[in-house]
Amino acid sequence: MNYKVILHTLGSVLNIEAACMALPAICALCYKDTESFIIYLLSALLCLIVGVALSLIKPKRTTMYSKEGFVTVALAWIIISLFGAVPFFVSGYIPNFIDAFFETVSGFTTTGASILTDVEALPRAHLFWRSFTHWIGGMGVLVFLVALLPLSGGSNVHLLRAESTGPSVSKLVPKIRSSAKILYLIYMGLTLIEIILLYLDGIGAFSAITLAFGTAGTGGFGVLNTSIADYSPYVQITITVFMTLFGIDFTIYYLILTRRMRDALRSDEYKVYLGIILVSALIISINCRQLFPDFGTSLRHGFFQTASIITTTGYSTVNFDLWPALSKTILVALMFIGACAGSTGGGIKVSRILILLKSIRKEIKIAAHPNSTHKISMNGKTIESETVRTVSVYIAVFLVLFAVSMLIISLDNYDFTTNFTAVAATINNIGPGLGLVGPAENFSMFSALSKIVLSLDMLIGRLEIFPILMLVSPYTWKR
Amino acid sequence: MNYKVILHTLGSVLNIEAACMALPAICALCYKDTESFIIYLLSALLCLIVGVALSLIKPKRTTMYSKEGFVTVALAWIIISLFGAVPFFVSGYIPNFIDAFFETVSGFTTTGASILTDVEALPRAHLFWRSFTHWIGGMGVLVFLVALLPLSGGSNVHLLRAESTGPSVSKLVPKIRSSAKILYLIYMGLTLIEIILLYLDGIGAFSAITLAFGTAGTGGFGVLNTSIADYSPYVQITITVFMTLFGIDFTIYYLILTRRMRDALRSDEYKVYLGIILVSALIISINCRQLFPDFGTSLRHGFFQTASIITTTGYSTVNFDLWPALSKTILVALMFIGACAGSTGGGIKVSRILILLKSIRKEIKIAAHPNSTHKISMNGKTIESETVRTVSVYIAVFLVLFAVSMLIISLDNYDFTTNFTAVAATINNIGPGLGLVGPAENFSMFSALSKIVLSLDMLIGRLEIFPILMLVSPYTWKR
Repeated sequence: MNYKVILHTLGSVLNIEAACMALPAICALCYKDTESFIIYLLSALLCLIVGVALSLIKPKRTTMYSKEGFVTVALAWIIISLFGAVPFFVSGYIPNFIDAFFETVSGFTTTGASILTDVEALPRAHLFWRSFTHWIGGMGVLVFLVALLPLSGGSNVHLLRAESTGPSVSKLVPKIRSSAKILYLIYMGLTLIEIILLYLDGIGAFSAITLAFGTAGTGGFGVLNTSIADYSPYVQITITVFMTLFGIDFTIYYLILTRRMRDALRSDEYKVYLGIILVSALIISINCRQLFPDFGTSLRHGFFQTASIITTTGYSTVNFDLWPALSKTILVALMFIGACAGSTGGGIKVSRILILLKSIRKEIKIAAHPNSTHKISMNGKTIESETVRTVSVYIAVFLVLFAVSMLIISLDNYDFTTNFTAVAATINNIGPGLGLVGPAENFSMFSALSKIVLSLDMLIGRLEIFPILMLVSPYTWKR
Repeated sequence: MNYKVILHTLGSVLNIEAACMALPAICALCYKDTESFIIYLLSALLCLIVGVALSLIKPKRTTMYSKEGFVTVALAWIIISLFGAVPFFVSGYIPNFIDAFFETVSGFTTTGASILTDVEALPRAHLFWRSFTHWIGGMGVLVFLVALLPLSGGSNVHLLRAESTGPSVSKLVPKIRSSAKILYLIYMGLTLIEIILLYLDGIGAFSAITLAFGTAGTGGFGVLNTSIADYSPYVQITITVFMTLFGIDFTIYYLILTRRMRDALRSDEYKVYLGIILVSALIISINCRQLFPDFGTSLRHGFFQTASIITTTGYSTVNFDLWPALSKTILVALMFIGACAGSTGGGIKVSRILILLKSIRKEIKIAAHPNSTHKISMNGKTIESETVRTVSVYIAVFLVLFAVSMLIISLDNYDFTTNFTAVAATINNIGPGLGLVGPAENFSMFSALSKIVLSLDMLIGRLEIFPILMLVSPYTWKR
């Protein structure tokens, strides 16, 4: 294990976090909030001191192997969450450090689960930082590092693979660094368009920016206690459209931008994803028809909540915990399906579900006709048995971690629905669940142990299990 | 598809069911219950008429291929459930045929989920038939057929494979027919010992026999409304021990009987299974300590309920729906784990869980050391990648069917916990769940549609998915 290259990279990550903290500091200045300004300035300084100190460690071998990539990514996410929690804790707005850590992990992992009972009591600088962590975490801090810094060959591919989502990483262009840059440019562009569209409604720059950050990262932290319920239908529909867009593989946008429509059309995943949204939203809208004055309103909330949950954003326009059982069960199912691979969304991902379904079909075909041969293909390419195996193992580990998490948090003695959806909403990076963690509730009642477990679940979900698993596995550390 | 051999085999199965119905008829005679006697006699006659008619169909080719084996088994189980429901329906004790079908499927699949609110209102002949269906379904009706009739080569191996549990069928002896005979002899022997031990407590022959049938098949239908709660601690402990024994791979008993202790000791599965029972029961006993007068009582109920749920029997000595969340979550986890492969128990099976966990460990090892090679072994043998793939696909189909079932039954608008555990308790062949389907409740409140879905779940669980899947798959029926 090349410790020096890991520590050096972690240093760079902290330097980036210091730079990011300058933004809430500027936000505090805009609102003449000197106290928050000083807190973010000092927090940034703390990041910078540790960051620079670590950056000074010069590794002899500058390349990374696969396992070092995994470990670096896992550690980087834990460290940025620890340092990112400092402003909340020091300001006294979240007086318990575990709570502040939970809130920050929830931000970076784009979960959006909160321990705050009154979000509106927070100064704007803090609200800005909460939403901005979503934006950073959405595309990934190491993807940003790879885009920014020239790392030696091999390092960046392992970092990118460990941080990005989905069963396989598709490089847009042969150079990894250029791929990372393109991804961030698309991400920024889409975010900017959303900010402008939201701003046009007259909700003000602050709300437009923070809501767009929460949408882009598929996070879900809002700036009002009622999430998105009190905004105009125009804002709600705009957010619905952009949540859906941020849940699509960014490769598709690159293909469209470079006018390779035929390649873009070849992908199965986003079609299935859009199909699931359409069907689920329609069923929910019909199922919830009686709860709203007219079917149009029912459709608006049905589509909003479907897009919010499948993309794992977690914004809400209504308290869906009060919906009929069928609609709630659909939402819970969508929590697990998740968005497309290569998007900012979480969950198991549509592509993994598709690969599983296709391997089921293959197995049935083989049972019916044992001597025939069958291949699984997706997005116009044959899926290697290697990938199928990895996907199966992924689901298996996911289930094991899910069960273990549920067992631990059930020590707090809340009901089955609360425990089940609390784990589902954190490990899939959604935010709200049902019952005591429903959209009108929050995670504050859990014990410190449960909050740590759920924080780990959020990290496990965002990093797609393996980095965290590699970090704690003895096989990684022994020769 | 060789339809004639399928119909011919179904005929034999119905003839066996007719013979089985003679037993509740005799039971009715013992209690001078003429009405029930006539009902079972006529029901047996109905089975026999259809059975003999089908048996007269003589197939040109008498051997079966794999897919014909699957289809035969699936159809056989549906048909015996349809005919087995006749006495309940005709007698008027279950006036709705879907309810009667649900109850009979629940019996044959050894689930033990009931739609009856007052079991004690049933005449003894009906109670006997309910429990006897558990005993028939536990080891399997086609295993019985294979043991009884000389089928042409190849046929019986496919039937046995489609009906028996676990990821692979281990033949005890080279001849399939002898294997089936040995399995039934062990099954009968163990059941007889349990009947004698229960009888010694003075609960009477009827209770001893029916309770032993419910234990042997890991079914769970009782003859009292309070399940096993009102019996003596001696009876409860005896049933605990026998539930545990019937959850172990029967191969182990054969090895012990033929004095091949070393081979018996080589198996990993039953050790893990016993380990899970020990650890779970201890945690539950400590967690529930305050609910009972002393720790001894807590241990008794803790071990009883753990053994009852992991073996998927479903007997209860207490209303565990009132237990703390940790204990309930452990029980729900045990529902999915299930018993050993090759036992009469249901669930996913310990061996499948073990294979999954081992393939997870292998994947982590490979990620840490990409150039090393690793093999998965169990019970002293290397597991083929073929088996690992089949297990993964099995879990995947299981999850899909679970989700679809939950979506359909959520149309009835009951709460999440009820819906989740209703599907878990039927697809894993347990019986009681939590909430509205808890041990003190029953399944009567569900709609006809939900009852049909849950009946299918029970069949899917008992036959381990593939026979039912093959029956409805278009690939089976097209050339």
